[in-house]
Amino acid sequence: MKKKYVPKSEIEDRINRLQKILTKENIEAALLIHKMDYFYFSGTSQNSVLFVPAQGAPLLMVIRDVDRAREESPLAQVVSLESVPILPDIIKDFYGTIPKKIGMELDVLPARDYFRFQKLFPKSEIIDTSKIIKKLRMIKSPYEVAQMKQAATIAKKVYEEGISILREGMREIEFGGWLELTAKKYEHEGLIRVRSLNYEAYTWHVLSGPSGSIVSQADSPMGGAGLSPAFPVGAGNRKIQAHEPVLVDFGICYNGYIVDLTRIYSIGELPEKYMEAYEASKKIEGLIIQEARPGTNAREIYEKSVRFATELGYADYYLGIPGKKSSFVAHGIGLEINEIPFLAAGQNFSLEENTTIAIEPKMVFPDEGAVGIENTVLITDHGAEKLTTCSEEILQA
Amino acid sequence: MKKKYVPKSEIEDRINRLQKILTKENIEAALLIHKMDYFYFSGTSQNSVLFVPAQGAPLLMVIRDVDRAREESPLAQVVSLESVPILPDIIKDFYGTIPKKIGMELDVLPARDYFRFQKLFPKSEIIDTSKIIKKLRMIKSPYEVAQMKQAATIAKKVYEEGISILREGMREIEFGGWLELTAKKYEHEGLIRVRSLNYEAYTWHVLSGPSGSIVSQADSPMGGAGLSPAFPVGAGNRKIQAHEPVLVDFGICYNGYIVDLTRIYSIGELPEKYMEAYEASKKIEGLIIQEARPGTNAREIYEKSVRFATELGYADYYLGIPGKKSSFVAHGIGLEINEIPFLAAGQNFSLEENTTIAIEPKMVFPDEGAVGIENTVLITDHGAEKLTTCSEEILQA
Repeated sequence: MKKKYVPKSEIEDRINRLQKILTKENIEAALLIHKMDYFYFSGTSQNSVLFVPAQGAPLLMVIRDVDRAREESPLAQVVSLESVPILPDIIKDFYGTIPKKIGMELDVLPARDYFRFQKLFPKSEIIDTSKIIKKLRMIKSPYEVAQMKQAATIAKKVYEEGISILREGMREIEFGGWLELTAKKYEHEGLIRVRSLNYEAYTWHVLSGPSGSIVSQADSPMGGAGLSPAFPVGAGNRKIQAHEPVLVDFGICYNGYIVDLTRIYSIGELPEKYMEAYEASKKIEGLIIQEARPGTNAREIYEKSVRFATELGYADYYLGIPGKKSSFVAHGIGLEINEIPFLAAGQNFSLEENTTIAIEPKMVFPDEGAVGIENTVLITDHGAEKLTTCSEEILQA
Repeated sequence: MKKKYVPKSEIEDRINRLQKILTKENIEAALLIHKMDYFYFSGTSQNSVLFVPAQGAPLLMVIRDVDRAREESPLAQVVSLESVPILPDIIKDFYGTIPKKIGMELDVLPARDYFRFQKLFPKSEIIDTSKIIKKLRMIKSPYEVAQMKQAATIAKKVYEEGISILREGMREIEFGGWLELTAKKYEHEGLIRVRSLNYEAYTWHVLSGPSGSIVSQADSPMGGAGLSPAFPVGAGNRKIQAHEPVLVDFGICYNGYIVDLTRIYSIGELPEKYMEAYEASKKIEGLIIQEARPGTNAREIYEKSVRFATELGYADYYLGIPGKKSSFVAHGIGLEINEIPFLAAGQNFSLEENTTIAIEPKMVFPDEGAVGIENTVLITDHGAEKLTTCSEEILQA
């Protein structure tokens, strides 16, 4: 296997940026326990806890497997952690002191573990640094963008090969399985990571005809039937018919980095209504891409998109059925599929350069079907660059 | 789609058992926020919060989608929850009072959310009821066992069809993709759920030859290469060769319920060494199955299995490479793949009737390969019953 290790310069830069903010915020150290956080700052996702002091070298303490972590991580200090209770002793050994103020990711650290860490560091204050971490991770380096472009290359192959896989009467879940098999052949890492207690990203979001108007648990214009009340999202057992839209929204992951995209398949031609709604989605995407520049307000872009959809005559269809519409039109993406920023109601802040977002204007026709487009883009100072370059025509089988 | 709803009698029985324990422990109510917990007690996994008072009717508050939750859940009280802050008002409306002692799942509830709930219920004590919930979920009803048997039926088809899919030179990840496609055709719900912050269950655990001796992040005898440091577990890009063991450990999920099983594939015949080690694994499984009865001690069964493996001459291979062995030989399973009980060092308690566990005695030969068997079994008062009934021969392609 080709070694896909995170370069040393990349890790050094990330640690530097974190230490600058810790220093500025008067936080003596961060103690990172969330897998994608310590992977971001260490280059390994082996079971670990990462200690990053505001000044000085970080310390990766590895529960399992330390040999593998040493090979994968460019950090100089990688030690074995036999049990979490000895963690304060190791920190004291390496740094001579226990920090008074420790930042942890309280958005994901379970309450029970929070209490345990409090007991381990009885004289320290544990504060929430999840916002700091999320904001650092929001800005993507050229290395990270390159990984996402590689994911996009896989996505293009998978979506375009899907045309020759889709057949009338094929069940949604089966088409989803074929797309995922194809993706895995090209090195797609099948899990799509989410930073959330309950939100799960399904890799088989294949919604044919009326399935595209079934709402489910997530804040998304459409959810799909799924296979059971236990898995009520994405592809179901419905047989795909000719001349109906088949909405495929499928994340592709390469070397940890995800791109998210949506395309519409059809067997034979689609009725004019769907073609027009799809064109309207592309127009709205065009507007959002034009607006998504460093300094523009996230909420305002979302609101502009809603106004434009209304002008185009799609008020009742844009982002879902009236009363059950989703409240966002784009989400940040990288190592996880629900990163910041969100282009959504209430998101009153400015976009930043080198942020990657997935923009997904979609239209839902109740009991009939859904169409729309989604691309993952990079926000630069000269405009948004599409990372996902798969054909934007209806993918007609 | 055939409706796979949880029967009303099932939900009533689960709520009754929870209410008995809440009453006994003097906890006025449980407030459940973990998806598989409120699914277990309500029959829906729509985005919700479930309030179960020690006496009286439960109340399911649904963020999205309330119509779907009403259809899926047999509970009488299912209401819309527009925002979490109004949760105390709804509870007061329905019950006239706010409980003084509220049980929540503090093993999974993020610390930040714990603080939010504390503010919402300033006069209440929030205590950890995760152990109570886990113990209730450990005991499986005939309905639950039937779902797991259905998952096992799918697993049998998938593993046996795998024989005609496997070819020399096929990459591990590709074989994994084919197995998952096959599983999805038979209604396997592709995500394997785990109750953990960082532990992820990969559905493509396909380890050929030396991949079977690569250790990774989980407490498991083998991890595999995976595809990158970001996804360092399970199938990698290695091409599968003839006459080497291909260990496939693959969970199958039906209607939310999982079975876990491991079988060994080979292209052509396996060298005698592996055949013998595989037979030894089956003998150890036989011992564990014989011992796994209500009332026997979980730790003792694990220790007996280690002693038996030593007697058989496999001390250096059983449950992993010396120094990197896993510390358990069986784990509970149901809606999640890491349920209680664990048959492991330090687990000093008695097994109970109607518990489902996956037993996985495995042998690892450093740098060469791994073999072993895994079945999901039901512990009854007349012994353990295998739910997974797939052929236990080497699956020779």
